[in-house]
Amino acid sequence: MPTVVMVEYDQASSEVRAIYDEIMTVKGIDFVPNFWKTLASYPPLLEEVWRGLSRAMAPGRLDALTKEMVAVAVSATNGCTYCIRSHTAAARKLGMDDAMLGELMAVVGTFNRTNKLADGYQVPVDPQLLAATEGAAPGTRLGRRLRQNRLADRKAQRTPKTRARTPRRRS
Amino acid sequence: MPTVVMVEYDQASSEVRAIYDEIMTVKGIDFVPNFWKTLASYPPLLEEVWRGLSRAMAPGRLDALTKEMVAVAVSATNGCTYCIRSHTAAARKLGMDDAMLGELMAVVGTFNRTNKLADGYQVPVDPQLLAATEGAAPGTRLGRRLRQNRLADRKAQRTPKTRARTPRRRS
Amino acid sequence: MPTVVMVEYDQASSEVRAIYDEIMTVKGIDFVPNFWKTLASYPPLLEEVWRGLSRAMAPGRLDALTKEMVAVAVSATNGCTYCIRSHTAAARKLGMDDAMLGELMAVVGTFNRTNKLADGYQVPVDPQLLAATEGAAPGTRLGRRLRQNRLADRKAQRTPKTRARTPRRRS
Amino acid sequence: MPTVVMVEYDQASSEVRAIYDEIMTVKGIDFVPNFWKTLASYPPLLEEVWRGLSRAMAPGRLDALTKEMVAVAVSATNGCTYCIRSHTAAARKLGMDDAMLGELMAVVGTFNRTNKLADGYQVPVDPQLLAATEGAAPGTRLGRRLRQNRLADRKAQRTPKTRARTPRRRS
Amino acid sequence: MPTVVMVEYDQASSEVRAIYDEIMTVKGIDFVPNFWKTLASYPPLLEEVWRGLSRAMAPGRLDALTKEMVAVAVSATNGCTYCIRSHTAAARKLGMDDAMLGELMAVVGTFNRTNKLADGYQVPVDPQLLAATEGAAPGTRLGRRLRQNRLADRKAQRTPKTRARTPRRRS
Amino acid sequence: MPTVVMVEYDQASSEVRAIYDEIMTVKGIDFVPNFWKTLASYPPLLEEVWRGLSRAMAPGRLDALTKEMVAVAVSATNGCTYCIRSHTAAARKLGMDDAMLGELMAVVGTFNRTNKLADGYQVPVDPQLLAATEGAAPGTRLGRRLRQNRLADRKAQRTPKTRARTPRRRS
Repeated sequence: MPTVVMVEYDQASSEVRAIYDEIMTVKGIDFVPNFWKTLASYPPLLEEVWRGLSRAMAPGRLDALTKEMVAVAVSATNGCTYCIRSHTAAARKLGMDDAMLGELMAVVGTFNRTNKLADGYQVPVDPQLLAATEGAAPGTRLGRRLRQNRLADRKAQRTPKTRARTPRRRS
Repeated sequence: MPTVVMVEYDQASSEVRAIYDEIMTVKGIDFVPNFWKTLASYPPLLEEVWRGLSRAMAPGRLDALTKEMVAVAVSATNGCTYCIRSHTAAARKLGMDDAMLGELMAVVGTFNRTNKLADGYQVPVDPQLLAATEGAAPGTRLGRRLRQNRLADRKAQRTPKTRARTPRRRS
Repeated sequence: MPTVVMVEYDQASSEVRAIYDEIMTVKGIDFVPNFWKTLASYPPLLEEVWRGLSRAMAPGRLDALTKEMVAVAVSATNGCTYCIRSHTAAARKLGMDDAMLGELMAVVGTFNRTNKLADGYQVPVDPQLLAATEGAAPGTRLGRRLRQNRLADRKAQRTPKTRARTPRRRS
Repeated sequence: MPTVVMVEYDQASSEVRAIYDEIMTVKGIDFVPNFWKTLASYPPLLEEVWRGLSRAMAPGRLDALTKEMVAVAVSATNGCTYCIRSHTAAARKLGMDDAMLGELMAVVGTFNRTNKLADGYQVPVDPQLLAATEGAAPGTRLGRRLRQNRLADRKAQRTPKTRARTPRRRS
Repeated sequence: MPTVVMVEYDQASSEVRAIYDEIMTVKGIDFVPNFWKTLASYPPLLEEVWRGLSRAMAPGRLDALTKEMVAVAVSATNGCTYCIRSHTAAARKLGMDDAMLGELMAVVGTFNRTNKLADGYQVPVDPQLLAATEGAAPGTRLGRRLRQNRLADRKAQRTPKTRARTPRRRS
Repeated sequence: MPTVVMVEYDQASSEVRAIYDEIMTVKGIDFVPNFWKTLASYPPLLEEVWRGLSRAMAPGRLDALTKEMVAVAVSATNGCTYCIRSHTAAARKLGMDDAMLGELMAVVGTFNRTNKLADGYQVPVDPQLLAATEGAAPGTRLGRRLRQNRLADRKAQRTPKTRARTPRRRS
């Protein structure tokens, strides 16, 4: 049992019940998972965490299965039993079979190993990797190209409204 | 600088140089990253880690970009600077733009939050989640179906050779 | 530099600038921290994380300084340089002196030690601790009293509206 | 059961029993928790850890409840079941109700999320945050003021005894 | 620079200076490391941490080099730069060469991988492993033998003084 | 139960059974641990992880018991129940008694504490520690001597074959 009294559906306030209904609908399940019944012991936390999670997990540029597998990878790295079970179940439902889980675990295992080796030996980042990943690295070709592309994309998306007001911030 | 002397290409043994060549070819880069030059201070580690990593990252049921994004997710969860830079660079090269990285980070952030909440409140795993994720959960419909499917798959793959010898293990 | 191009105030969309303004106002600072300029590379993440953080940090039953010190404790446990600097600065501003930081670090150090000892020796939870922390532990006096108190509190808060619709969930 | 034989009170040496007695008195409980009965399998560890913990948890500039809540925050971040139960129980006893625990968990969740985002995007520390947190940052107003205040405090506390002997260390 | 003003030797109180002297003597170095000059901003923390560390690192059943290598292993797993540098330096001084560091890192890497796989797949502990590690597992041969040996050792060490007073604790 | 169906010995393919046999022989046990029966759900992972682990654990410059104790230290730091049990059992078998485990845990606890203090206070690495641990630090005596020794060792080990081919890499 958790360290608070879980809020069962029929004991919940109407606000909490509305979130429970949404959870069951979005996840396509017919029960309220213990995680949410636990957070409901402090309703603002239930609302905040559910809003954040449902936005983050909505399919976008990454599809739902990829997102569930990243959730499994993060939860395995943190060793969180509840979350591993929960997101393995979700990924299974979306089609992850044993071989896909095996490949995922191979990647998770590999980088938990190399992460500790890179830190353990205190390996410095190569200038080439910095150039390829720093948005503003000015002196390298790849960095410059990446930066230009991204600034161009951003300009294209920005609303063309006039910016009359004076910015307050100082860098 | 790392805590050992990195092995530069022209100081390396021919065995190490062969691995360096393979690394540059497989990754499509024209330099040997510091990580591998560091591991080469103990050649068996270089060989073992490179073999493992290259096998794990070869495209299979998961594509190369998905694997690199999982590598970023694990490295961000562990806070490993070198690995974050290295795999962000690799994912960028395979097409990850700012929105994809943003979605990835939203998922990474979400589950680092919920992992700690599930642990912090000591939420017990729901029987439904156990049933959906336990290979052998005998009394549930979903568990039973999943198990049967997987056993069927496995049987299909197994070589039909006779198993004459007595198993030694005891469960 | 981060792995994306940070969004400066005068390059930001009006939506992003509105969040930047709110951040500077709420935090009482005259610059936009790099963290938020980085998240703005993917505006939905900026919005989601700022909303969540500002709600969580608003003084409530815990005061602002206690919350900032918990933020330092979590960030030290995770080893996050940016966050340690950021929340140490905020806690300093709210009055944390060297002795308070010293006491905080003594607690952080102590429990990072005992956490690993409890896990390392695989210490089982005492029945008395379970009884004192499980919302529903039925057979213990402390558990029963805690549970009754909390259920009573909850009942008092619940809106007395009729619950006509049938609950869908099954425990 | 732990990976050693726990030392029960009536099997303990008189030194161990003296510590057990102190633990029960300080904590106001009538049993010796498993954690301490486990450490007693190696008495120097029992003594060292109990001394450290009891000093760190003694009310000082931070009160007992704040310290217990920081203990819960650290233990949740590390995912240590024993410690979460133990310190949730202690904080409950000192008055933490569900709303306070909810606020605490909201903060713990928030910073486990932002810690990973700051690392995942490799956000550099702002010069303003460095200035506000570095004891010796010479060129900034806030840094200079903080530094002067703290040096003044320290001078006031220092014993005015003559320092005749030559220091050995070199910075 | 750290988030406090470090206490230099000639600005330190005589109590702090006595600890600094002891640190330099025990470690055989001619400077006070930044870690200790930082903790001295809150002298009780300096004293407590130095006492604990010097006791834990004193050669006993494990020799000094083994202890320093375990310190490197823990610090690499946690990704703590300062501690990795500090204990790699100490282990080097005690004779650790590149091959020994390589073997150590191979072990560290291996178990950071398998730890996450065991958690990621939620592998249950084998009854045989429980029997071999649980001090009190009554029904297994190995458990029983281990337990008897350890109880015998303990009895041999216990002082034979009469235990007249009634124990207060209840299990 | 794990999140996959474990592969029992008599259901395993001949390749998997060959690895099972090798595991039991190398470890000197008469059962296949659940960890390996779980990895066998994706045979390439079983093979890769077993190969890596058996190489890393083979006695070399560090003996088998030291390696098992490092495994316990890493697993305790990560809080992995399965691995703690597994490697405590292995270390027990190789002679680790309660006092040795106690000393090991004292070291593990100490550095989990100091790691978080060093990070929490953002302690900068001393120039002396850098010099003593950086393979190539050119201006310091210790660094220079260490570097020369290591380069000399390396030269001695290198095969004297001609290096005719042009290196491809650029630093």
